[in-house]
Amino acid sequence: MARTNKNKSKLKVAFLGGVGEIGKNMTALEYGDNILLIDCGCVFPSLDAPGVDLVIPDMAYIAENIERIRGLVITHGHEDHIGAVPFLVEDFPHIRIYGSNLTLALVKHKLKERNLSMPKLVAVKGGDRVKIDCFEVEFISVTHSISGAFALAVRTPEGIVFHTGDYKIDYTPIDGEKIDLSRIAQIGDEGVRLMLGESTNIEKPGSTISERKVGETIERILVANPQKRIIIATFASNVNRIQQIVYNCERLGRRVAFNGRSMKTISEMARKLNILRAQPNTLVDIEDISKIESGKLCIITTGSQGEPMSALTRMANGEDKAVVIGDRDLIIISSQPIPGNEKPVYNVINNLCRRGAQVMYGSLEQLHVSGHACRDEIKLMTTLLKPQCFIPVHGEYRHLQQNRELAIELGVKPEFTMIPEIGTCVSVDKKGLHRQDNVSAGNIYVDGLGGVDNLILRDRTQMSREGIVVLLVSYDVHERELVGDAEVILRGVAIEEDCIRSIRDVVRSIFESADKQRDPDRAALKSAIRKRVSRLITNKLKQHPMVLPILIEL
Amino acid sequence: MARTNKNKSKLKVAFLGGVGEIGKNMTALEYGDNILLIDCGCVFPSLDAPGVDLVIPDMAYIAENIERIRGLVITHGHEDHIGAVPFLVEDFPHIRIYGSNLTLALVKHKLKERNLSMPKLVAVKGGDRVKIDCFEVEFISVTHSISGAFALAVRTPEGIVFHTGDYKIDYTPIDGEKIDLSRIAQIGDEGVRLMLGESTNIEKPGSTISERKVGETIERILVANPQKRIIIATFASNVNRIQQIVYNCERLGRRVAFNGRSMKTISEMARKLNILRAQPNTLVDIEDISKIESGKLCIITTGSQGEPMSALTRMANGEDKAVVIGDRDLIIISSQPIPGNEKPVYNVINNLCRRGAQVMYGSLEQLHVSGHACRDEIKLMTTLLKPQCFIPVHGEYRHLQQNRELAIELGVKPEFTMIPEIGTCVSVDKKGLHRQDNVSAGNIYVDGLGGVDNLILRDRTQMSREGIVVLLVSYDVHERELVGDAEVILRGVAIEEDCIRSIRDVVRSIFESADKQRDPDRAALKSAIRKRVSRLITNKLKQHPMVLPILIEL
Repeated sequence: MARTNKNKSKLKVAFLGGVGEIGKNMTALEYGDNILLIDCGCVFPSLDAPGVDLVIPDMAYIAENIERIRGLVITHGHEDHIGAVPFLVEDFPHIRIYGSNLTLALVKHKLKERNLSMPKLVAVKGGDRVKIDCFEVEFISVTHSISGAFALAVRTPEGIVFHTGDYKIDYTPIDGEKIDLSRIAQIGDEGVRLMLGESTNIEKPGSTISERKVGETIERILVANPQKRIIIATFASNVNRIQQIVYNCERLGRRVAFNGRSMKTISEMARKLNILRAQPNTLVDIEDISKIESGKLCIITTGSQGEPMSALTRMANGEDKAVVIGDRDLIIISSQPIPGNEKPVYNVINNLCRRGAQVMYGSLEQLHVSGHACRDEIKLMTTLLKPQCFIPVHGEYRHLQQNRELAIELGVKPEFTMIPEIGTCVSVDKKGLHRQDNVSAGNIYVDGLGGVDNLILRDRTQMSREGIVVLLVSYDVHERELVGDAEVILRGVAIEEDCIRSIRDVVRSIFESADKQRDPDRAALKSAIRKRVSRLITNKLKQHPMVLPILIEL
Repeated sequence: MARTNKNKSKLKVAFLGGVGEIGKNMTALEYGDNILLIDCGCVFPSLDAPGVDLVIPDMAYIAENIERIRGLVITHGHEDHIGAVPFLVEDFPHIRIYGSNLTLALVKHKLKERNLSMPKLVAVKGGDRVKIDCFEVEFISVTHSISGAFALAVRTPEGIVFHTGDYKIDYTPIDGEKIDLSRIAQIGDEGVRLMLGESTNIEKPGSTISERKVGETIERILVANPQKRIIIATFASNVNRIQQIVYNCERLGRRVAFNGRSMKTISEMARKLNILRAQPNTLVDIEDISKIESGKLCIITTGSQGEPMSALTRMANGEDKAVVIGDRDLIIISSQPIPGNEKPVYNVINNLCRRGAQVMYGSLEQLHVSGHACRDEIKLMTTLLKPQCFIPVHGEYRHLQQNRELAIELGVKPEFTMIPEIGTCVSVDKKGLHRQDNVSAGNIYVDGLGGVDNLILRDRTQMSREGIVVLLVSYDVHERELVGDAEVILRGVAIEEDCIRSIRDVVRSIFESADKQRDPDRAALKSAIRKRVSRLITNKLKQHPMVLPILIEL
């Protein structure tokens, strides 16, 4: 009992989420009876989880500790930081959520789409300090590829925990909201017990380029192609980039139309929040673009990642209602393919080329810049904060390892660092980091409206690779005899007639060798059929389809 | 009749294969009654073709014209140029195959593995000119990431067709076999009617780096880490790279072991052909490495692309029999992930890091160089050949478009160029290029021992994304009535009890509303069940599993 209490009054950090990237999506900061959640994001899965719509953190630990949760603090409004909020709110409708105006607007939209009741949303701005039970959270403005992004300095009874969130150091940001380096330096001087530092771009030397450069590149292209209709694909959430395009178009006498659902939604949201500004006559509805001549129009669209249902993919396939691609079009892909998305992105580009359009993409021109700090920026951040303890977050294992090594180079003692995995829980005090038992954590695969468990994913994967063989076996329950031959139904696999005959022979022999004196055991029969038919197909065809025997008692 | 004859005596080129990359894998050169095939390769499919082992060109056109085929000329021994040879030989065992010693050794190995009879194999070397009916093929040595690679100058009654094959311009190759630029220049002076030029790296400016640089990088790493066991993952077919590693190890007193099936096979093959040389005491069997201290050993292994069954993946997962990874290991990934392979490659790297190994990879150090010509090399090649007609090959549509534009910049007339697709057939004469009807071409998906058609792939894809719902519906054929309730069997999809009840209600209502006076139409019943149950599941669950109704007549 005493031990539990003592344990409870420690400062602890638990890493609850992350697909591929460890320590992303969701983190819990605990002290005594208080848990503060940081971020609640999702990941869009890759082809190795067929049919899954999104992947969210396992909420089991939150459910176990629901009475201790004091609130959710969100660093910024990207999907990997807010995408799982509806699932949290569904189960815990009274949770209090803190974030910037834009972050909360995106959260609200998400909750409305799912008809969920609104929890208490608390809007904060850079410099705000909010007391949440035993924690005091200071929100520090940082630059990133979305507006309203924060790093967090959380004051706890065991000292300051500094979470960088996602950031880059952009000295010339579009919205004027610079990263507050002076405040970060002050906090470093005050003394940081633990720094959680993002690691995404640790492998990239130097510094990221300012978002402003992308605006300059696009301006150059607009000036050089006064006759062309310009179509720019980028992330809907990068409001600063969209703002630059809008300003350029206004200067150069082009009107701007938005295409794609999230582009329309987020641009409208940002206009209401006054983060995105446009003159009264600039914007034009995508349905009305036919009235405007090519050289006077710019379309900003979703689909820069080759997403199958996105507006750019529809255009490339000749399926978009509003935009028909032809040789008057110049298309700019203002993004880099996220690793794993290369093929769909290049398919879209190839099909746009086939329709006669000119497509600009890739790294030759500065058409895109990253929102994540490169190595030199990470050096600056760790140096300013000079933390006692350091835990790298937001990255694959290889990234965390390199960020840890960098922190050690910069003076953090090796024994005051560690590399977490999903589920890692660690306590922090003057003496350093102490590993605790792992907590429940992992990934939940969400599909349509419900969750998908691993068994279902395994079934899908097997069927997708090898198909399914349904065996319809009718037998006389009294005579314990097969009636007719097994019916063989194939989906996703081709089996020739002579192999099907062998399958029927196998089924028949199983019945013939069965003990006629005893009642047939349906489970044992099914299992025998499944095993022997699978073996037969493996031997004959070197394939492993799912075999599904169905027994029909007559 | 006259028309057919006239048509037949034209020089034609048909592009028979290519997955993603157009004009790769297989090309047919035709004149009159003679067809010469160039290359016969396969592609390893991506996750969008679940369960497919490899993709080969459709051989329908060859089957239609089998009596006109005069031989197969292979430019080099990479899988995308030789991988489909067993399928060709299976159907056309009398075909004559021309290639370098290494190419033919690899082909022979492939045919033996599949127990196929050996066709006539004709070994050629750089400079050889071989008469194949009305064609005279000159084999011109080029540098690439495999030894024994050729470009082809094919003399035809309509002039020279020059096929570059895969090449780079390496002025300091390891095996001393330089690309024969002087001969290429002579052929250009003689006059080239048509150039088929590879386009893979057209987007990369400048020139590729010499293979020799990789050897220098690896030497530097070996020197700097005398205590470490070094493990180098690279392509088994890159014999020149392996040779450099062997020479480095001999100089620095390390023994060399090969791990992974293809690494063992190809290195042995190359040693027999005297392309790979090693001193008597250099090589050590992978089973015997435990006797050798870390600093005296280097392991060269397969798996640089994160292939699931490869030796490096086994090591990363702690499943390799011979090699147990630990903190004494320094692992060098001497390759770049092929687009689409990023995730498996980085998974392997992360798991090697987790085992305490140091892993070097990526582009920071020169650990890998491409085997394909960059833009400036392509410029040189097109300039030396100064072809009348130009067709870009080996690339996605976007690459071919850029290579065509480059050829036009270099002086080829736009109307003497074209961008092919798979199945394109074009005739060539003094007046230029003339499109012919497309020929049968496309991709065959090979799975286990047989082919997979598109219907099967579609089924697999649907099942993989959404699962399958098997509905067992028993009915009395005389009373035209349902017997009991439909049995619902789920695989790869989860459906709750109340939705299953609704499914049963739907099936019941279909039977109730059926016309009792007429014999039930099984097909119509099945189709009604499939449609209405699918609609129900889509509405309730927003999912689209495959619905497979099975009618059982009692």
